[in-house]
Amino acid sequence: MAKVNTQPYKGTRDFYPEDKKLQKWMFDKWSRVAEQFGYQEYDAPILEPTDLYRMKGSDEIINEQTYTFEDRGGRSVTMRTEMTPTVSRMVAGRRQELSYPARWYSIPNCWRYERAQRGRLREFWQLNVDIFGVESVDAEIEMLQIVDGLFRAFKAKRSMYTIRLNSRVIVAELLKNAGVTDSKTTEVVRLIDKIDKLPSSAFATALDKITAKEGVSRKILSLLKVTSLEELPEGIKNSDSFKRLESVLSRTSKLGITNVVFDITLMRGFDYYTDIVFEVIDTHPENNRAMFGGGRYDGLVGMFGVEPVPTVGFGMGDVTFQLFLESNNLIPLMKSDVDVRIVTTNNEANEQAMSVANELREMGARVSVDYTGKKLDKQMKQADKSGVQYVLFVSEKDQDQYTVKDLKSGKESKHSLERIASIVCKEIS
Amino acid sequence: MAKVNTQPYKGTRDFYPEDKKLQKWMFDKWSRVAEQFGYQEYDAPILEPTDLYRMKGSDEIINEQTYTFEDRGGRSVTMRTEMTPTVSRMVAGRRQELSYPARWYSIPNCWRYERAQRGRLREFWQLNVDIFGVESVDAEIEMLQIVDGLFRAFKAKRSMYTIRLNSRVIVAELLKNAGVTDSKTTEVVRLIDKIDKLPSSAFATALDKITAKEGVSRKILSLLKVTSLEELPEGIKNSDSFKRLESVLSRTSKLGITNVVFDITLMRGFDYYTDIVFEVIDTHPENNRAMFGGGRYDGLVGMFGVEPVPTVGFGMGDVTFQLFLESNNLIPLMKSDVDVRIVTTNNEANEQAMSVANELREMGARVSVDYTGKKLDKQMKQADKSGVQYVLFVSEKDQDQYTVKDLKSGKESKHSLERIASIVCKEIS
Repeated sequence: MAKVNTQPYKGTRDFYPEDKKLQKWMFDKWSRVAEQFGYQEYDAPILEPTDLYRMKGSDEIINEQTYTFEDRGGRSVTMRTEMTPTVSRMVAGRRQELSYPARWYSIPNCWRYERAQRGRLREFWQLNVDIFGVESVDAEIEMLQIVDGLFRAFKAKRSMYTIRLNSRVIVAELLKNAGVTDSKTTEVVRLIDKIDKLPSSAFATALDKITAKEGVSRKILSLLKVTSLEELPEGIKNSDSFKRLESVLSRTSKLGITNVVFDITLMRGFDYYTDIVFEVIDTHPENNRAMFGGGRYDGLVGMFGVEPVPTVGFGMGDVTFQLFLESNNLIPLMKSDVDVRIVTTNNEANEQAMSVANELREMGARVSVDYTGKKLDKQMKQADKSGVQYVLFVSEKDQDQYTVKDLKSGKESKHSLERIASIVCKEIS
Repeated sequence: MAKVNTQPYKGTRDFYPEDKKLQKWMFDKWSRVAEQFGYQEYDAPILEPTDLYRMKGSDEIINEQTYTFEDRGGRSVTMRTEMTPTVSRMVAGRRQELSYPARWYSIPNCWRYERAQRGRLREFWQLNVDIFGVESVDAEIEMLQIVDGLFRAFKAKRSMYTIRLNSRVIVAELLKNAGVTDSKTTEVVRLIDKIDKLPSSAFATALDKITAKEGVSRKILSLLKVTSLEELPEGIKNSDSFKRLESVLSRTSKLGITNVVFDITLMRGFDYYTDIVFEVIDTHPENNRAMFGGGRYDGLVGMFGVEPVPTVGFGMGDVTFQLFLESNNLIPLMKSDVDVRIVTTNNEANEQAMSVANELREMGARVSVDYTGKKLDKQMKQADKSGVQYVLFVSEKDQDQYTVKDLKSGKESKHSLERIASIVCKEIS
């Protein structure tokens, strides 16, 4: 039959060992930060009934951007596009049994059918961090602490990114006061969500068209120029939402998280957010754009017919995050995950090489053996190519003492296996 | 709209934090054993072009047991059913660049559309371990060492399972000598593969039907009664395959792997195996069946139009492995992944609780805070429910010294944060 292509499916990545090592390094740090804050890992099947995504009403995504199909039993299923509907389903399913606050995280892979481009792939991984059961803004502040902790874990400086913050409730209130009728609010919010992508004249025209009143448009345009809480109309400053937002800004600042800014134009596309939303912006000139975001969505768990649970969370993709690390030179050289490679003078020495390897493993070393029986120089070349630092020689004559070579320095020396284990294992971090 | 179900898709599992903890515990051990032997982790997209599975000719699986559908661009894609075709594709794609022997492992999730039953689910995870580039039986022996190491990592005894071993080349040779024509070999092998599932009379009848000669059938039936290498016909004992098989049996035995047995009826269903195959059998009376297996498949990489690469590998599923651990009582109680929970006397103490939590985190503790503002006894109840061992009390009056309670012993004491960190962190393994 015809030769099958060795490329992965379009818009996805194979993870060869060196790629996987980088991914693991990144994910391990993500997990460690989440766990410092007491978050517990969860997971779920990658296929969900399509109905789960229909709940939220982001029809555009379901109809055009999902991998949706019928299973052999005629059920419509969708490969998950994000984790929020799934985690809400799981919490709703054990609404009564769970202990609150519940702090959960996950690093699932998600699928979207889109045209592949820089920073956007069909399969991506996403760190999801959510806290369930906290009404106070302590939850929002903790989320921003975690975001801050994530970047610090990679030695990123706070000047490398900005955290934009806004309140959907305040925006709704301001729009109402400006004369936007309830029926138009969603439309206006969706337009504001696109403000960064539209020329200002096109934005103003579109706004006029929705509000149908020049005066209303003018008020909105002037509101959108506000850059600090102080500039907001006095009337709003006594509201609960204002106090919440103010509290998040002042307390994160007190915690040393100095790159949080109020941004009245920030909406976040998803319809499920109910109050405070935030977004993290890469400030690198070549990469200046929104990386990820989150916010409060108190209504989602309740959509499964149980009592609602206040929730704050965010989802952060691997592709954009890795781009951030790359453009800021924050990815170190990865170490070899093998401590020592054993080469043999001929195939007859393989059995002895195997028991030497076993002894070293008992001492904690990660050991591979070249069993190919090729010439020694070829085995050495392969060892070097594999990135391992130490090579150990085994011939049938050897006993007790073995020659080990450091491929970095080129030095050779002869030692007992105990000594060799301690030399090669010091590299384990 | 109608209430959406909170159950996961049929035949799959949600992993709530306690389930995920168990899975991680299991997978971490799998990884550690593979890495001791110098295996490097890799990964690949869960969707593959359907053609990849058509290569091997296991049509039954493609047509009935896969999740296959057309993407929005009209390409036929399949959710991976196993990792072997994918890993062969990846090695073929970098045939020239890789360093050999290449040792790779992965723990992918796989999907099969089957009726859900004990030990069989639609989504399962599978440890895949493969070595590329070794022609000698050192590769097979290393695989069996890894299998042995996996069970030892869970404190399983060798009496709890048996490793069956056979050679497809020897079987083919023996069948030829018994008078089976080349065109019938595959059919006979497939029948023998089912020998454990058929009554012996039905087996004999089916065999007669294929061979169409009573004498041939009789010879085969008597061959299948052989239980040791010594009993095999003298003619076969000088063959290379016999020596290979003998070497695997004697060398694993010398290594202390005492539960490897020759089983002439072992075939392994997949058509891609080329010589030695093995299978691990659970000997527990309630669970006595094949758990997983592997073998040598030297031909698969070459099917992508590159020079073939000798390969030995196996795949071990999570569902059956976990059943094995459960039926042998090998799963310990999992520890809480939070070291201390902070409870507050009222919402006004939340800000202070947050900075206490930060200090403890800097000292290495995993800390969660109850920000609900509920009454203290309710917060205590939730802490207990979450499984955490230590609870720390924060009120606005507290300074420098805080009260910590051990929920296991019920004892309370007052200490500095440094002291508290050292008390709660000693639990981290």
